[in-house]
Amino acid sequence: MMVLITYDVNTTDKEGQKRLRRVAKKCVDYGQRVQNSVFECLLEPAQFVLLKNELESIIDTDKDSLRYYMLGANWKRRVEHVGAKETYDPEGTMVL
Amino acid sequence: MMVLITYDVNTTDKEGQKRLRRVAKKCVDYGQRVQNSVFECLLEPAQFVLLKNELESIIDTDKDSLRYYMLGANWKRRVEHVGAKETYDPEGTMVL
Repeated sequence: MMVLITYDVNTTDKEGQKRLRRVAKKCVDYGQRVQNSVFECLLEPAQFVLLKNELESIIDTDKDSLRYYMLGANWKRRVEHVGAKETYDPEGTMVL
Repeated sequence: MMVLITYDVNTTDKEGQKRLRRVAKKCVDYGQRVQNSVFECLLEPAQFVLLKNELESIIDTDKDSLRYYMLGANWKRRVEHVGAKETYDPEGTMVL
């Protein structure tokens, strides 16, 4: 199933910056980075459970958030992209 | 229809920072901010066309990107949120 994952990680301190890197790295392992904090991940249900557990163990739930959008079988028809190409470099220039 | 809008605006210069503010402000007019660069907008088809035109006139398509996800009628069942509450303040602390 296609799951869109978006996150906000509060990077006002070094711990937050570390969490942001860890969340991004984990998402890179499972899917395609389409924007800086937006990933599209084609996952088996068991993988999704695993990824959720991993991400939720990284974030600080008081400061950060994760959103999952189940895009369903027709996900390709649901997506439209405008502008610069997808960003793939997890450690590259911060593009918000 | 429910449209999820995500954006990356390159803020390495002042023009980019201005574009980011303008994109955020425009999205606030049409929907609910659920993360810093993620909005859920319940739109009539004509409104969606208008919003797209407005956003695409603001961004620099060489540097920035917009993605639209049509979440369909059952959008509430497609969304899962974990962690800190949705962010609503368009000018607040930058939360990535």
